[in-house]
Amino acid sequence: MSMNGAESLVTTLLACGVDTCFANPGTSEMHFVSALDRVAGMRCVLGLFEGVVTGAADGYARAAGKPAATLLHCGPGLANGLANLHNARRAAVPVVNCVGDQAITHRPFDAPLTADTEGFARGVSAWVRTASSAAQVGGDAAAAVQAACTGAGGVATLILPSDTCWGAGGVPAAPLPVPARPQASPQAIAEVAELVRRGEPTLFYIEGDGLREGPLADAARIGAATGAEMWCPSSFRRLSQGAGRHSIRRTPYPVDAAVAAFAHIRHVVLVGTARPPVGFFGYPGKPDVMTPAGASVHVLARPEQDVAAALAALAEALGAPAVAPAARVETAPGRGAVTPEGLGASLAALMPEGAFVVDESVSFARGVVEACHGALPHEWMTVTGGAIGNGIPLATGAAVGAPGRRVVNLEADGSAMYTLQGLWTQARENLDVTTVILANKRYQILFGELVNVGAEAGPATQELFSLARPELDFVKLAGGMGVPAARAETMEAFNDLFAAANRRRGPFLIELAVD
Amino acid sequence: MSMNGAESLVTTLLACGVDTCFANPGTSEMHFVSALDRVAGMRCVLGLFEGVVTGAADGYARAAGKPAATLLHCGPGLANGLANLHNARRAAVPVVNCVGDQAITHRPFDAPLTADTEGFARGVSAWVRTASSAAQVGGDAAAAVQAACTGAGGVATLILPSDTCWGAGGVPAAPLPVPARPQASPQAIAEVAELVRRGEPTLFYIEGDGLREGPLADAARIGAATGAEMWCPSSFRRLSQGAGRHSIRRTPYPVDAAVAAFAHIRHVVLVGTARPPVGFFGYPGKPDVMTPAGASVHVLARPEQDVAAALAALAEALGAPAVAPAARVETAPGRGAVTPEGLGASLAALMPEGAFVVDESVSFARGVVEACHGALPHEWMTVTGGAIGNGIPLATGAAVGAPGRRVVNLEADGSAMYTLQGLWTQARENLDVTTVILANKRYQILFGELVNVGAEAGPATQELFSLARPELDFVKLAGGMGVPAARAETMEAFNDLFAAANRRRGPFLIELAVD
Repeated sequence: MSMNGAESLVTTLLACGVDTCFANPGTSEMHFVSALDRVAGMRCVLGLFEGVVTGAADGYARAAGKPAATLLHCGPGLANGLANLHNARRAAVPVVNCVGDQAITHRPFDAPLTADTEGFARGVSAWVRTASSAAQVGGDAAAAVQAACTGAGGVATLILPSDTCWGAGGVPAAPLPVPARPQASPQAIAEVAELVRRGEPTLFYIEGDGLREGPLADAARIGAATGAEMWCPSSFRRLSQGAGRHSIRRTPYPVDAAVAAFAHIRHVVLVGTARPPVGFFGYPGKPDVMTPAGASVHVLARPEQDVAAALAALAEALGAPAVAPAARVETAPGRGAVTPEGLGASLAALMPEGAFVVDESVSFARGVVEACHGALPHEWMTVTGGAIGNGIPLATGAAVGAPGRRVVNLEADGSAMYTLQGLWTQARENLDVTTVILANKRYQILFGELVNVGAEAGPATQELFSLARPELDFVKLAGGMGVPAARAETMEAFNDLFAAANRRRGPFLIELAVD
Repeated sequence: MSMNGAESLVTTLLACGVDTCFANPGTSEMHFVSALDRVAGMRCVLGLFEGVVTGAADGYARAAGKPAATLLHCGPGLANGLANLHNARRAAVPVVNCVGDQAITHRPFDAPLTADTEGFARGVSAWVRTASSAAQVGGDAAAAVQAACTGAGGVATLILPSDTCWGAGGVPAAPLPVPARPQASPQAIAEVAELVRRGEPTLFYIEGDGLREGPLADAARIGAATGAEMWCPSSFRRLSQGAGRHSIRRTPYPVDAAVAAFAHIRHVVLVGTARPPVGFFGYPGKPDVMTPAGASVHVLARPEQDVAAALAALAEALGAPAVAPAARVETAPGRGAVTPEGLGASLAALMPEGAFVVDESVSFARGVVEACHGALPHEWMTVTGGAIGNGIPLATGAAVGAPGRRVVNLEADGSAMYTLQGLWTQARENLDVTTVILANKRYQILFGELVNVGAEAGPATQELFSLARPELDFVKLAGGMGVPAARAETMEAFNDLFAAANRRRGPFLIELAVD
């Protein structure tokens, strides 16, 4: 059968196991879209803005454990998706990022939408390629999937000039083998084993696959046997948590708090991350790295290595016995005024089993994750690159990637406004997402940051941090995109809405008034 | 007086005449924000998303004739603003694009928000610099303003590591001279004069400053004296139009229509643009350039040259007499069903004098600009780089830049959803913007593009182009951001709402149901 480049693209992606595409297409992607009607099997999910598309691809991969494709329109369309690709890059999440572009023959004429598409892509991509002919597209697509899935994972950007899609002679490609994750060296494991046997204050700083159920159990064994402390970064890709899992401590976001927590540490062991605990920002007079300057740094497993196997091997080398996981703790939901503690109690009590929590709570709910150690088992995701506007898209993609499981999106009001369009996709696809807008009507985090950098908040500053004039009405905003919504001003009202929302099929939004 | 880098930045910008800043700040910009409380005179306008900020800076400059500053947060914040900076680049609009970033001392630690900020900036910027110390910031800011205002104008990106802002020793800089626009060469004017005297079919293709009142009068003189045809691109920066002005024809967006319109052309004269009419995209079997392949191409004035003077000199060289401008044509507003013709008639009848029209109507209202030749005098702006999501931000910025004049934003529903957050800024600043959402509930333009590229629209395609499931309710969406709104389903209802909206102070949104 003769096919065009676009058909070979879709056929190859499907052969490589990529069967979901988040899309915001334009003219240069018309043949890809048209190919969907002739090549069966690709689920295409429309987003009204590219940041929704790329963030959803991130959330899908975190939930489903395999990449989705995106479909974006030219350099500016890619540009709109870059911030959430930055977040995906920071979490080492596989994304097959397809960008249609000007026809090769049309590019020299510098039409208005022509831009430096490759240049935009490079800063967020582990791999960038521009297809050169219809005959190459299939092979390029297979290489993109391979690149996205290699190591810890990454963003593979495949730029598709429109004539490589409409051109005849498309050749579907077979999947390329994904190399196995390299093993941590026996020497590294032996050295860390020797280190922790000394019993000096040691921090295991764990990210990536190290935060899943099995590796966390091994980390707990190591900690119990040696006294080493197990911590994850303040931002992480996906943390398995709740009853039956082993808890880990989360590094505080404020530098002073982290420095205090780590002041006694003598050794840092990196597991699934390449960096010791680094402050989100530099501040005058505060350290860049939050562990003591004299602490030694060791690498058990780099992000691209087999992190789970490294922790298991270390636990075995130490002869560390198994440790009991967290038990289900039945707690009462929060009552009365809305507080972080109340929200934590309500989540711990009411979160459905197997939920995915997407946490872009920024300032209000930082401690909520710890409150859920005894909740029913669930998975927690955060904004890994600090680029806000990730939460609603992540939740959208996670719901597509894990059907049948509820997604709970804790979303700061300021952050919600960056990519609110994702609610429409949730309504369109009837996705099981409960969005909790934490409406404090200001960029609260910036007041703390102002103090941290030693600046002052006069009237102009206060005004620039305020979201209160006019007030955002998230019930109306959600309704305008087809998502039913309600507002809660007490924990009791929240509890009722939250429990009901989690029993429904399809999305629901709760605007929770917080101070 | 001793000041920090941020204070020297604000002081220098003010000294250079930049007194308006569109901002979406984060931690790395805290000192800039704080400086606003100590250095008087900078109007800071908050946007809830960076695409609003950059598009508003574009609209401000188009309306006010001088640049605004932006204030963005790190590489990902810049990334969110790139698409509208791409549009500004394509229109040669001056923007002083300030991007706070990680402290120089913190950058090596690769904190989560660290990104290739310069790399993101390059594709949209005429000038990029990263400040290296507090003492340099003032001089860097003056150089940025100079760069933004040189030639036709451009995006000057100044990246400000946070320690260059909090550091002591800031030195305000005096404005740097902006070089005068180079004059077109007498030889070029003489050659074009000789060309047009031959009377062969000649197209003047005019952009930039050539579309303002005076140059258009000279273009009309040249056309009347020689028979040369005066056309502007389908997308243009700012066109002065209406009674008392001289009209110009707008190149059709569809390639086939433009090719037909230009089929007889033998010579092309470029005025304020570097390109002959190029199709927005390449299509199979259609030409890239829409004027005939054998047509000769001549340059009267490049974009960076003094376009107005070149047209005036050519008109003088030809001894071309003055031509009467368009007269005010009193027409009845549209009636009955909503049609493009009805909308054109209503705008022509009801548009207030001195209005700025921001046109991101995409598919529905392409002919509306011509319908307004006899309206009260007004200024028309379009999306110059083809990156949709420009209209609401442009309208927001234009209203800030031209107080006392009404802004009318013709906005396609699909495009509106990219940067809808701009409505909140309109409410917050009580801006005089009437937004008309052209709600056809689909990406209508893509159906035409599908045919143009020779692809077919099966069920999957239809679904991906549809915005009807769920329906967007723009009255609710606007209300959620504090903008009063109403829906019209007939021209009569539209006329009443539009006339009333234009009499108010502050924003109003009309959702106009179109097919």
